[in-house]
Amino acid sequence: MKIDLNSDMGEGFGPYRLCDDEAMMQVVSSANIACGFHGGDPETMARMVRLAKQNGVGIGAHPGLPDRTGFGRREIPYQPDELRQQMLYQLGALTAIAKAENMTVGHFSFHAAMGNMANRDPALADLMMSAISSVDPNLVVFVTPDSEIERAAKRAKLKTLALFLADRAYDAGGKLVARGLPGALVKEEAAVRARVRRFLTDATVEAIDGTIIAMPARSILVHSDTPGSLELARVVRSEIEASGATLAPAAELAS
Amino acid sequence: MKIDLNSDMGEGFGPYRLCDDEAMMQVVSSANIACGFHGGDPETMARMVRLAKQNGVGIGAHPGLPDRTGFGRREIPYQPDELRQQMLYQLGALTAIAKAENMTVGHFSFHAAMGNMANRDPALADLMMSAISSVDPNLVVFVTPDSEIERAAKRAKLKTLALFLADRAYDAGGKLVARGLPGALVKEEAAVRARVRRFLTDATVEAIDGTIIAMPARSILVHSDTPGSLELARVVRSEIEASGATLAPAAELAS
Amino acid sequence: MKIDLNSDMGEGFGPYRLCDDEAMMQVVSSANIACGFHGGDPETMARMVRLAKQNGVGIGAHPGLPDRTGFGRREIPYQPDELRQQMLYQLGALTAIAKAENMTVGHFSFHAAMGNMANRDPALADLMMSAISSVDPNLVVFVTPDSEIERAAKRAKLKTLALFLADRAYDAGGKLVARGLPGALVKEEAAVRARVRRFLTDATVEAIDGTIIAMPARSILVHSDTPGSLELARVVRSEIEASGATLAPAAELAS
Amino acid sequence: MKIDLNSDMGEGFGPYRLCDDEAMMQVVSSANIACGFHGGDPETMARMVRLAKQNGVGIGAHPGLPDRTGFGRREIPYQPDELRQQMLYQLGALTAIAKAENMTVGHFSFHAAMGNMANRDPALADLMMSAISSVDPNLVVFVTPDSEIERAAKRAKLKTLALFLADRAYDAGGKLVARGLPGALVKEEAAVRARVRRFLTDATVEAIDGTIIAMPARSILVHSDTPGSLELARVVRSEIEASGATLAPAAELAS
Repeated sequence: MKIDLNSDMGEGFGPYRLCDDEAMMQVVSSANIACGFHGGDPETMARMVRLAKQNGVGIGAHPGLPDRTGFGRREIPYQPDELRQQMLYQLGALTAIAKAENMTVGHFSFHAAMGNMANRDPALADLMMSAISSVDPNLVVFVTPDSEIERAAKRAKLKTLALFLADRAYDAGGKLVARGLPGALVKEEAAVRARVRRFLTDATVEAIDGTIIAMPARSILVHSDTPGSLELARVVRSEIEASGATLAPAAELAS
Repeated sequence: MKIDLNSDMGEGFGPYRLCDDEAMMQVVSSANIACGFHGGDPETMARMVRLAKQNGVGIGAHPGLPDRTGFGRREIPYQPDELRQQMLYQLGALTAIAKAENMTVGHFSFHAAMGNMANRDPALADLMMSAISSVDPNLVVFVTPDSEIERAAKRAKLKTLALFLADRAYDAGGKLVARGLPGALVKEEAAVRARVRRFLTDATVEAIDGTIIAMPARSILVHSDTPGSLELARVVRSEIEASGATLAPAAELAS
Repeated sequence: MKIDLNSDMGEGFGPYRLCDDEAMMQVVSSANIACGFHGGDPETMARMVRLAKQNGVGIGAHPGLPDRTGFGRREIPYQPDELRQQMLYQLGALTAIAKAENMTVGHFSFHAAMGNMANRDPALADLMMSAISSVDPNLVVFVTPDSEIERAAKRAKLKTLALFLADRAYDAGGKLVARGLPGALVKEEAAVRARVRRFLTDATVEAIDGTIIAMPARSILVHSDTPGSLELARVVRSEIEASGATLAPAAELAS
Repeated sequence: MKIDLNSDMGEGFGPYRLCDDEAMMQVVSSANIACGFHGGDPETMARMVRLAKQNGVGIGAHPGLPDRTGFGRREIPYQPDELRQQMLYQLGALTAIAKAENMTVGHFSFHAAMGNMANRDPALADLMMSAISSVDPNLVVFVTPDSEIERAAKRAKLKTLALFLADRAYDAGGKLVARGLPGALVKEEAAVRARVRRFLTDATVEAIDGTIIAMPARSILVHSDTPGSLELARVVRSEIEASGATLAPAAELAS
């Protein structure tokens, strides 16, 4: 069995760092590269592309809203076409930087509010996915299982890869428990290990209320902007390797 | 004879306008579209692409330094690789926005300080041109005749198109008289008409000291960020049409 | 009778202009100076202060949300304390620039969304007004009659000056008809003249449904970011002068 | 003997941190607060002011160039008046935020390139110091001993406080060895301790070539944006306390 382990990368810029990208790039199989709006800048993007190349890591665009101070987490009431153009702008920017390094952008993963807005609005999700499809019909879109973005991606005939978030709690309906609610973040190493093991063995996860629910994912996302993220990613990787599964970049796994 | 008439477009953003882009797009054959750093934003870029499409105008990337307040005219001491990545970022951004509108970016034209810096530094010019070549070897690069960028573009096997600036004075050596020096800007309609006529007939221009010099250009640039720029562009176009020459986008003319 | 005529000024920056500030400064008695977030920059602010000084115009702070592309009109979900600090930051910035020119900031006028948010939320309005009061208890706050900001300003013991918008329609309840609704903008010179005359004579305005309502204002606001704004301001000024009233800066009129 | 220990604070913003400001604020006697251009934002500034208040720390403005990516270290060719207005803008912004917390800005310390530019140009230094003097003649200006800014501050009748940089090498002429040169940064704890002890005992420092030079300073600056800065600050503080000197904010010490 092949599985992808991915993380958001290059979300710092200039003197600012949110994560030890050099170390994290040795752990993941796919890197979601910030594209200069919520984090990152052109030079940081190029550095991430080069690091990914050195480490055999697949690269993806990780566009967000143009809001560094809010780290792309605030929902700003842009018009649908503004959001579409912001997304295209960032996707294209990374594509050119990657191409000059002989690398290909293989996947796409929304950051925070930009994704949340699309996941609540089928028309916006369609607008986004049709734009991606017109730019690169081979891109693999990271999705939450059973979400508006997943459905829109399929309508646009884009390949998708469903994500399992090893360090975030789910409710019995399979939705993420909102940040800020108690228990939303799973922090203990043993708990994360157990969740990854269950996921790899049974493709299930224990929801916050104890229910066991299906988790039809092929990729594990570890956040990089939290303390201890690097160690957590290493824990997840060691569980994947112990399970006998093989790490592979998103673009190899999607369907 | 075919000739290109081009202008920098979409250099406003949000509520700000430097030019009546809608009207200017009906006059030019090529549009150099600002890419969000010195001017423009994703939505404005998409608007320019759509306007160009409606008017049969060729589109090009017009990247600049990330300095809206200085309008990309201040030379900021970035490292060569920072400049290269800034350029790639902007080129890629426009490429994706254009592709989603079924348009192709056909040419490339530096804005202000970014171009001035490359024109003074052969190593930087090579770094820039090799980056362009690796992203799109078919792009036509706008150049000043006999300049570092022209030489670097040829070394990178990129097609070039030499520009004649109808509203700027040249010295006897064929260099532009610096903005700010007396006589640098040619403002009178009659003078502009005479210059365009001479250029179209003899491929020469009268330098600021009266010398007649060769002007081996195939494209006329009219600035859009000055008062009266639209009228000036119309004057140039009427002279082109009166001469019997035909307007054609840059990408059709380059060699 | 004394009346104030004011306009938002210095909302351009770098190469961008929304209004002929030099000409407008000769027409108004108070200038609401943009403070670098939705428009303006430090150099533009200093230019506005100097122009106001030359023309005997009173100056006020005109802070907005940090959103140039949206011109401060988009409501962005900042926390109350973030909004308070953004407001203080801008007010302080103008205060120092003015002080170095021997000028005093005499009034305060919210721009667009920042004001709209405070006008809908008494707690936010109180947070803002108490902050202003702690920084400068003599500032005069521009208010819509019978609004949350007016009430909060009075609770904070700040002087207020009620605004009449000569070029915007009111409903029968005295509220502004929202931009975008039909008839919201009053564009014809004759209509504006008639409204100003009625206001100066009777302190009333004809609402959009024909009702005559009270307009207990002492200051007329003319927007500067619309075409024809300068001419409109001149029309209003000529009506004020024809009525026998005298123009005076906001800080002289407030109570 | 009283001595000041200060550090640059609040240079992160949004999700970004360069330093553990909460911990550092317990070590220093004066905080140089970034003002939103090279680092910081309004909310971060307010947080710093509140932390300083809780810890009995004096606060100062730490303005820089508007260049987050370059962290205010790149020299950007602004006009002198632009630099002056940028400085005033930031100083005023902090002043208002502090005033609303019942705190007073007591000192002033340039950040990086803005200070370097003024230290090379007496006319610019005068322009800056006269602007500060017109806004608050009681501000204490942090200076390098025997520098253009020191001389300009004295001409503007501003109080000054000379800085000793415990973690940076000096040459025999008393100038800082440029970052990037070998030995420019003093990293070993023992070396820093020895330097602080010598400074406190004899008011001298050993230059990079072994010469002992006078160090007529009353304030020790510890950088906060380097790894280990917090520990270094604690080392310096323990040496100060061991020497019998007393920590005091800059505003109490200046002359």
